[in-house]
Amino acid sequence: MDWTEVNRRLFLDRYEIAMAAAYVREGRADTTACFDYFFRNPPFDGGYTVFAGLGDFIAGLEAFRFGPEELAFLEKEGFSSDLLDLLGQFRFRGDIHAAAEGEPVFPHEPVVRVEGGLLETQLLETLLLNRLNFQSLIATKAARLVHAARGAAISEFGLRRAQGEGGLQASRSAFIGGCTTTSNLEAAHRYGIPAIGTMAHSYVLSHDNELDAFRAFARSHPDDSVFVLDTRHTLESGLPNAITVAREMEGEVLALRGVRLDSGDLAYLARECRRRLDEAGLPAVRIIASNQLDESVIRSLVEQGAPIDTFGVGTALAIGRPDAALDGVYKLALVGDRPVMKTSDSLPKTTLPGRKATTRYSDDEGNFVADAIHLEDEPPPDRILHPHEPGRSYSLASLHREPLLKPVLRQGRAVAPLPSAAEAANHARTQLKRLPAEHRRFENPHTYKVGLGPELAALRDRLSRSPRPQNA
Amino acid sequence: MDWTEVNRRLFLDRYEIAMAAAYVREGRADTTACFDYFFRNPPFDGGYTVFAGLGDFIAGLEAFRFGPEELAFLEKEGFSSDLLDLLGQFRFRGDIHAAAEGEPVFPHEPVVRVEGGLLETQLLETLLLNRLNFQSLIATKAARLVHAARGAAISEFGLRRAQGEGGLQASRSAFIGGCTTTSNLEAAHRYGIPAIGTMAHSYVLSHDNELDAFRAFARSHPDDSVFVLDTRHTLESGLPNAITVAREMEGEVLALRGVRLDSGDLAYLARECRRRLDEAGLPAVRIIASNQLDESVIRSLVEQGAPIDTFGVGTALAIGRPDAALDGVYKLALVGDRPVMKTSDSLPKTTLPGRKATTRYSDDEGNFVADAIHLEDEPPPDRILHPHEPGRSYSLASLHREPLLKPVLRQGRAVAPLPSAAEAANHARTQLKRLPAEHRRFENPHTYKVGLGPELAALRDRLSRSPRPQNA
Repeated sequence: MDWTEVNRRLFLDRYEIAMAAAYVREGRADTTACFDYFFRNPPFDGGYTVFAGLGDFIAGLEAFRFGPEELAFLEKEGFSSDLLDLLGQFRFRGDIHAAAEGEPVFPHEPVVRVEGGLLETQLLETLLLNRLNFQSLIATKAARLVHAARGAAISEFGLRRAQGEGGLQASRSAFIGGCTTTSNLEAAHRYGIPAIGTMAHSYVLSHDNELDAFRAFARSHPDDSVFVLDTRHTLESGLPNAITVAREMEGEVLALRGVRLDSGDLAYLARECRRRLDEAGLPAVRIIASNQLDESVIRSLVEQGAPIDTFGVGTALAIGRPDAALDGVYKLALVGDRPVMKTSDSLPKTTLPGRKATTRYSDDEGNFVADAIHLEDEPPPDRILHPHEPGRSYSLASLHREPLLKPVLRQGRAVAPLPSAAEAANHARTQLKRLPAEHRRFENPHTYKVGLGPELAALRDRLSRSPRPQNA
Repeated sequence: MDWTEVNRRLFLDRYEIAMAAAYVREGRADTTACFDYFFRNPPFDGGYTVFAGLGDFIAGLEAFRFGPEELAFLEKEGFSSDLLDLLGQFRFRGDIHAAAEGEPVFPHEPVVRVEGGLLETQLLETLLLNRLNFQSLIATKAARLVHAARGAAISEFGLRRAQGEGGLQASRSAFIGGCTTTSNLEAAHRYGIPAIGTMAHSYVLSHDNELDAFRAFARSHPDDSVFVLDTRHTLESGLPNAITVAREMEGEVLALRGVRLDSGDLAYLARECRRRLDEAGLPAVRIIASNQLDESVIRSLVEQGAPIDTFGVGTALAIGRPDAALDGVYKLALVGDRPVMKTSDSLPKTTLPGRKATTRYSDDEGNFVADAIHLEDEPPPDRILHPHEPGRSYSLASLHREPLLKPVLRQGRAVAPLPSAAEAANHARTQLKRLPAEHRRFENPHTYKVGLGPELAALRDRLSRSPRPQNA
């Protein structure tokens, strides 16, 4: 499953091959290297990111090959036969540690650690960033929508406005972030997500009148009809016709599943529909609302008490509006046994050197308190240092500790089967409950503490104070 | 080419299958229908949209099939064997008329017209919208970046922040909109777009020092090196090291191609680099700038006279930030011989009934003046009516006329080979020159005139005044 048919392609930025060519010529293709994936800001001005895309990335990496057609193209591009011979044999044989899909993660901390030869760890950069950045963005958006809906369901409807084939990955990530259903049939098939969706306005228009349309649809889908109400006028035409047909259906022991509101004032229309459906003895008919929803509109509808059972969210969810991208990066931290870092004028843009681990600390109730980034061979610290403000530190003594990064691939082989989308969704639900509410709120969320172990901080400071000479 | 391997999938929203099931049960699967694709607003608050994605859509549609695995899934979902038998035989056999890829197009006018049986024209809805909305968005973004760059080149660098597999389509659309190169190797391979990209910071860090890194890279890529300058410090380390190596290379009759600025004040750094490179006798070394560029940053850099030869644009281009989606829709206009429209409280959201054509009018110099939407069997009108403001009209007498929609598929078969990405890019370049500057400017672009032919307007008004009875 998962895109293997697609990954037998040149899923690369050209510079990765250009660097690979240089590494081969220098005889350094197998020099060991360690890269970190991390991001600098949670999306949507929020307080957390729901990590997603790992399964898709790993499946893509396992299938990452260069076939004859790809090699012929690279030859035409001028790459050497030494490189092409090596690429013809390529498969990733390194190690990967990563957070679990669905895990809430935070700025600056390594979320994935990739180790192996310089060539193989460099070649996967774009695939990794493409998969993890986008899918984490969408899982985070979905979690925010679910939070705003306070118990009502969120259904993902975005394929028609999604960014091309990215729509399939959007549906999977939305499910991980807490959506319960999707309109996307391929995602339903591939990932086991329940699919919903019954009629468009075009179906109603294709009949001589709306009542005929509803009747015909109910005959075809006696146990699974949702009528769209606003083809003519929601309250004057759609709702009365839906009630008429719902009552006719009841005579046949079947029931109308729901009605869909797709325009107008959703709070007012939902209340009116609920009231008239209840008066008509149809309390089981669900109300589904759609039309340019996002977390702030949903929150407003919920606050107004609108009796909406399911929110169908399309564009804003499938493209992660307004951010539409997560700023995750993949940075070299170790070459051979030499820790490296990119220096910068501003400390927050400096990278962290060395082979590192991320440890999560929680209290006796299981609530997340802070995360520590530390050297892999440094024990999880009792006190973390603020990553950018010298002198500030925070005590973590007596808290529970668990490693965030767990082995995923060893020498290119999966350590265990990757979790399904449903398992990742369960993990997200469980772990988001452990994240204190002040980090989940929309306005000025409290910054989750992520600090450095003292040995890592000392290494970073040493390398920034006395960089290796840059002119020979 | 073009995704055929991917389209043997359920690229559908569930409601399309649910409606198909109803059409089959009603014996109306083959009832003729006509749908229009159009959008309501150009993206980015601009004055035009560059139409793209047609080739990808048509290739996907030609490959659109239901295999045994897909049929088994639909059976499990509860769909009838009558429907499944029909889907097992499915291929699109209808007619499609469309604007050419690369064409500037405008709100409300049909850009694609799809005709065929109710079942087949409904099944393709999501594929069509997904392909055309996203790719038109990105082609438009690229055209805006090219406009801002006033002759400097734009290279598309966005795959790592693109929305999953959408990144490939983004690269193709960016090329259609006027980008000259891409970092995306698969796009280069598949679509013939020149690829660029040489080194990341990680390459520099993997060496003991920057000078060694540049030397080693130059030996590996003597005729194709671009050095990234800001791993340590652009002016104090990167630039002097680049000049040293460029001079060493000259001794071997080869030349450094360029340097890349990826942080800091790009206007200042570009000027300093240009001055020092020229002083060093290296006027042929090009300056490439990247780092969160978009059309307003590029315009500002150009206005400051920054001597930048190529702008590398990543995220903002590949995801079409800030909009990240185009609001195109697919609406039923005719069933059998009955014109239909979705009414609405507001005239701008009403759809246009009937089988329609779009005609473009231009002056003697070839400049676009206005477009008319009219009934297919109504001659291109000499006067168009404002689509929403009764009483306003505009004379088009004595202007040249050309049909915007041309046949693409007849009975499911391609009328002619679809243009390549390069041909579509040429078409865009030619046609954008014919669009007067006032529609291309960024601030408050003048609204391009799109009006209705009198017979279409009369039909629309008749249907909105006296809708068919909605209660039987």
